[in-house]
Amino acid sequence: MSVASAIEALKPLFGERLATAEVLRAQHGQNEAHFPPAPPDAVAFPEGTGEVSAILKLCNEHRCPVVAYGAGSALEGQHLAVKGGISLDMTRMSRVLEVRAEDLNAVVQPGLTREALNTELRATGLFFPVDPGANASLGGMAATRASGTTAVRYGTMRENVLALEAVMADGTVIRTGTAARKSAAGYDLTHLLLGSEGTLGIITELTLRLQGIPEAVSAATCRFDSVEDAVNAVILTVQSGVPMARIELVDEMMARGFNNLSGSALPEKPHLFVEFHGSPASVAEQAERFGEIAGELGAEGFAWTDREEERSELWRMRHKAHYATQTLAPGKRVLATDTCVPISRLAEAVTGAQADCRRLGLTATIVGHVGDGNFHCGVLLDPEDEGEVRRVETFSERLAETALRLGGTVSGEHGIGLGKMKYMNAQHGAALAYMRAIKSAFDPIDILNPGKLLPPGNQ
Amino acid sequence: MSVASAIEALKPLFGERLATAEVLRAQHGQNEAHFPPAPPDAVAFPEGTGEVSAILKLCNEHRCPVVAYGAGSALEGQHLAVKGGISLDMTRMSRVLEVRAEDLNAVVQPGLTREALNTELRATGLFFPVDPGANASLGGMAATRASGTTAVRYGTMRENVLALEAVMADGTVIRTGTAARKSAAGYDLTHLLLGSEGTLGIITELTLRLQGIPEAVSAATCRFDSVEDAVNAVILTVQSGVPMARIELVDEMMARGFNNLSGSALPEKPHLFVEFHGSPASVAEQAERFGEIAGELGAEGFAWTDREEERSELWRMRHKAHYATQTLAPGKRVLATDTCVPISRLAEAVTGAQADCRRLGLTATIVGHVGDGNFHCGVLLDPEDEGEVRRVETFSERLAETALRLGGTVSGEHGIGLGKMKYMNAQHGAALAYMRAIKSAFDPIDILNPGKLLPPGNQ
Repeated sequence: MSVASAIEALKPLFGERLATAEVLRAQHGQNEAHFPPAPPDAVAFPEGTGEVSAILKLCNEHRCPVVAYGAGSALEGQHLAVKGGISLDMTRMSRVLEVRAEDLNAVVQPGLTREALNTELRATGLFFPVDPGANASLGGMAATRASGTTAVRYGTMRENVLALEAVMADGTVIRTGTAARKSAAGYDLTHLLLGSEGTLGIITELTLRLQGIPEAVSAATCRFDSVEDAVNAVILTVQSGVPMARIELVDEMMARGFNNLSGSALPEKPHLFVEFHGSPASVAEQAERFGEIAGELGAEGFAWTDREEERSELWRMRHKAHYATQTLAPGKRVLATDTCVPISRLAEAVTGAQADCRRLGLTATIVGHVGDGNFHCGVLLDPEDEGEVRRVETFSERLAETALRLGGTVSGEHGIGLGKMKYMNAQHGAALAYMRAIKSAFDPIDILNPGKLLPPGNQ
Repeated sequence: MSVASAIEALKPLFGERLATAEVLRAQHGQNEAHFPPAPPDAVAFPEGTGEVSAILKLCNEHRCPVVAYGAGSALEGQHLAVKGGISLDMTRMSRVLEVRAEDLNAVVQPGLTREALNTELRATGLFFPVDPGANASLGGMAATRASGTTAVRYGTMRENVLALEAVMADGTVIRTGTAARKSAAGYDLTHLLLGSEGTLGIITELTLRLQGIPEAVSAATCRFDSVEDAVNAVILTVQSGVPMARIELVDEMMARGFNNLSGSALPEKPHLFVEFHGSPASVAEQAERFGEIAGELGAEGFAWTDREEERSELWRMRHKAHYATQTLAPGKRVLATDTCVPISRLAEAVTGAQADCRRLGLTATIVGHVGDGNFHCGVLLDPEDEGEVRRVETFSERLAETALRLGGTVSGEHGIGLGKMKYMNAQHGAALAYMRAIKSAFDPIDILNPGKLLPPGNQ
């Protein structure tokens, strides 16, 4: 009973769809973050729920680890096979199974990416709003409880998944939730699986809420003298009930990065990038209301547009934050943090992070989904420079401590994976034992993504 | 080790706040639904989390059942002490602990009612939007995953609880979630406790999301020739992106009941009651858009108002649906169902229920939160008439089967409690075993609200 015997047992069932070639293994062991590669022993390409069930049943019998792989865009190493075993590549399960336009939902397979879904939806007048930037797989987004720039208006994966099909550790197939908008019937297993990072079950089907494509969209930008002023403008706008669709804080270093990469000429000051969705009259009204509030906080250079090309250009620039950050120190890697705090503490958290960066001699950009209190520091890092690596670790730990002290969370949207297990005890305290109890009850042999999310018992 | 020994052990700790008087026990064993009374052996009145913890620790040691009691407004008997034991009356834990206006949230104790919270919030310009009609306790609303007329706009308790403090079976106090708007840090224990009906832990503190009181509110009513036309108007309005705050279907029998009770003169036809929240310009626009869509579906008598007294009158009438139903057969009781289906199947579900009523010779009203696909049949029932009781049971079972066949749920908002355990297997299938596994892991001795939510093993 081992990984090797599991692979032998699976070979006759999957043939060439169970690959052990070096190059495939290496590809599935890579990541976009700073974690060392961790290739699996084999890569399986299931084509349906029945096959996922067969793999899990066998792997459970053989005590062989299984880790799901979607687009490989996880930022906390969730898809890395740190204990070896089978990488379950879901890319052949990437169909839209049904679009129910009247019900504003769609049933999809987990390997489908969010952009592919939105392409398929185009003719229906509907779209799936959750936008983490990367073209992630929807199964991966569900497993990590992803969100992104539009969460302030449309919510995160938590609000946008109605129902799941999942294969549990022993191969049992379950269905959670229903196609109805709400349910009060029993324990909420849908939300338990969302954000469980493949440690409790493998998602094989998702029923997703869709939204009508707004009739009109307008975007606005403006700049402030200080992060406090920018954040106060956000708080007042949220409180006044203006339903912003996106509101992003861009700090002075991020503005510099954007200028480097895109040739834009943003003044190196804190900016807000905002978007409004609605009827033509309401988006105009929303943009005007936002402009008034921002003006009271001393905003300059307020500009708004409803031209699609200008808006697209703005969000294209925003989504290149990672590469824009790299221009500030070419050759270095970027560690992306994602703490989230109550919005009233956001200015304190952001200015504290900026001060820590300066004190530690680090270079970092800040860009944030500020309507949610969520912000990303993109910290530049030379992995060969041990001193810098240590200082980045110190920065990261202080950031996590600050988020918890201010009533927030160590992860707003990237998840725990490998990088944040060390904070689980500080964040959850006595509740951590109940998470462990669920894991033990659902996956007693610990074959599902072992070594992730839950820290080893002594931490 | 028994209920009696637990009461003996608790007496010195709680004195008069542990009552065994007949009248108090009887009061805590009553319910607003059709279940027979089930009084506890004693009623405890804890005044803080530490006391709840002490009670649970002792009751766990003595194997004594504990069931939480808020406002007693549960509709599926969730608060009934069907296995005896201690009723944990939470009414002395009913304070607003903190209002964080900037963060749009408040920290409250579970015994606080939603109306009391909104009264305390009045000066802040904020409100808590979840409105199940009854003045329920917020702990009870969380434990049953309640919702109501405003869920189409603001969501249910699922979307409006950020964080919980709960006492677990052995007295351990845990905290779930954070004060930040979102978190991707570990298993979602908040959502696991929401809707768990006191079977996994006792909620002792809630952090609730608040909303800005809308600047303007308008309400509209209109009537249709058929339920299909009314529901199609709802579907088109939802799809067109009009952000309705409330949208209620009132069927012809319900209209008759309202006329009986309130002296109104509604034509006995299907009606929609709608409410819009926003800026003055946007609510006018929304009401106009809705009027156009309803007109295309043949709506008559379209009328809208932004006068507060007229709006209040409308929703006061709506909230009296229970009593209005009773006017149709004075002296009978009302069984309130709450199935929820995908909105595209709503007309089928509603007309099917009406046809079943006629076939079974029953009288019932229908009123529904149709933006969510959720509707209530108020079926009139003489508990002394065995034939009628059986026909109501048949009706109820057919309704549940239909909801499941149409992709919906047996409970949209009332929960499982005692009345719907028999449908848990049909709704959840293999997933039910995972719910049982969680229950066993969290409450191995089964002291927390035993006999509710999870059906006995052989069902």
